[in-house]
Amino acid sequence: MQTPKACFFDVFGTMVDWRTSVAREAAAILKPLGHSLDWLAFADAWRGEYQPAMEEIRSGRLAFCKLDVLHRHNLERILPRFDVSGLSEDTRRNLNLAWHRLDAWPDAAPGLMRLKKKCLLAPVSNGNISLMVDLARRNGFSWDAILGSEIAGDFKPKPRVYLAACEAFDLAPGDCMMIAAHSNDLSHAAKNGLRTGHIARPNEHGPGKGEAGPSVPVDVAGRDLEDLAAKLGL
Amino acid sequence: MQTPKACFFDVFGTMVDWRTSVAREAAAILKPLGHSLDWLAFADAWRGEYQPAMEEIRSGRLAFCKLDVLHRHNLERILPRFDVSGLSEDTRRNLNLAWHRLDAWPDAAPGLMRLKKKCLLAPVSNGNISLMVDLARRNGFSWDAILGSEIAGDFKPKPRVYLAACEAFDLAPGDCMMIAAHSNDLSHAAKNGLRTGHIARPNEHGPGKGEAGPSVPVDVAGRDLEDLAAKLGL
Repeated sequence: MQTPKACFFDVFGTMVDWRTSVAREAAAILKPLGHSLDWLAFADAWRGEYQPAMEEIRSGRLAFCKLDVLHRHNLERILPRFDVSGLSEDTRRNLNLAWHRLDAWPDAAPGLMRLKKKCLLAPVSNGNISLMVDLARRNGFSWDAILGSEIAGDFKPKPRVYLAACEAFDLAPGDCMMIAAHSNDLSHAAKNGLRTGHIARPNEHGPGKGEAGPSVPVDVAGRDLEDLAAKLGL
Repeated sequence: MQTPKACFFDVFGTMVDWRTSVAREAAAILKPLGHSLDWLAFADAWRGEYQPAMEEIRSGRLAFCKLDVLHRHNLERILPRFDVSGLSEDTRRNLNLAWHRLDAWPDAAPGLMRLKKKCLLAPVSNGNISLMVDLARRNGFSWDAILGSEIAGDFKPKPRVYLAACEAFDLAPGDCMMIAAHSNDLSHAAKNGLRTGHIARPNEHGPGKGEAGPSVPVDVAGRDLEDLAAKLGL
């Protein structure tokens, strides 16, 4: 298989384990304040508001804003469901930044280093630039640029997000590969002419709750990012 | 002096030596085709069209486009002045990419490595993302993100370019430092609330033709980027 000139990456779930990281961060902030709740359920509930919130913007009903703003809006929606109230503004802001402190899956940074030898690398995530930068610093992700929703002014899977990334690198979509653990993301990337690489994250949403393999045709599928790099000859 | 949370960098002249690099690239491409000209004068003439071309966009007379497009337009303007004609489209395209193959001043990459320990780093240049990425790969610049004209949709010294960079990092302008070898750039950054750092590039436009020091008040001035990093305590 010919090596793509650029590899674009989904981040939440594909590169980082948002679920256990958000649960850990929430516990670290809320436990000392006397709150006791099912931290993994809290992470799942917060993530559950993710797609509906973006859909308001994808549909054109609301103007584009950074994902940090949507995360905060979603946090305010779920706190009452867990009977959490009375948090200070500082605590809410800090809790919202849990998404900037997610830990990578162990193969993510080593896989990027292998791909970097031959490919330009960028996240094409719905996360904002500052969020991507914080995750990169924390986890040693070596990006050439931060692309994705904030430079496109819209959220995946809208075509503009994939195409703006290709245009930023002056590349035809066929020279670029979208890499994700989500078949839906890859299906939309392929519709826009990008090549596609799937990574298995079988436990993204909890034990056995994640994609162990693609449910759509892809150009390459790996057990993890190092395996995918090897399959691309790197 | 308190270390800024982010350092933003002018690139052409400040981080890379565009003049001798463009002269070298032009000679490498045009000499084998039988052309003989004053290569440094050619580089100066090309760069001479830079500000007037951007002014068409800053003024609103033309829509924003990547600097690569302006460089190509400017190339077409200057070729006849040097009696160069009959170049193929491939040659013109390759010549235009001379700006993607500029060499760094020797202190640039080591200076960035020192600053990276404490500061987020991004180019805030009028160059497009792909151009910045190519210069970073060539010269070992370790950026956290590529900011600047392409994410702002305008060219420096318009306020939007400085402010879009601060906003991308979720930082107040006063937490950010613009670093440049050009007093005009720093003067506009300061007007928008950013801190400013000047680097001496006394030979940017040829021997003795460059800023040996700032002509406006700045927060810090260095002989080069390593000296400036030291003055910031890094």
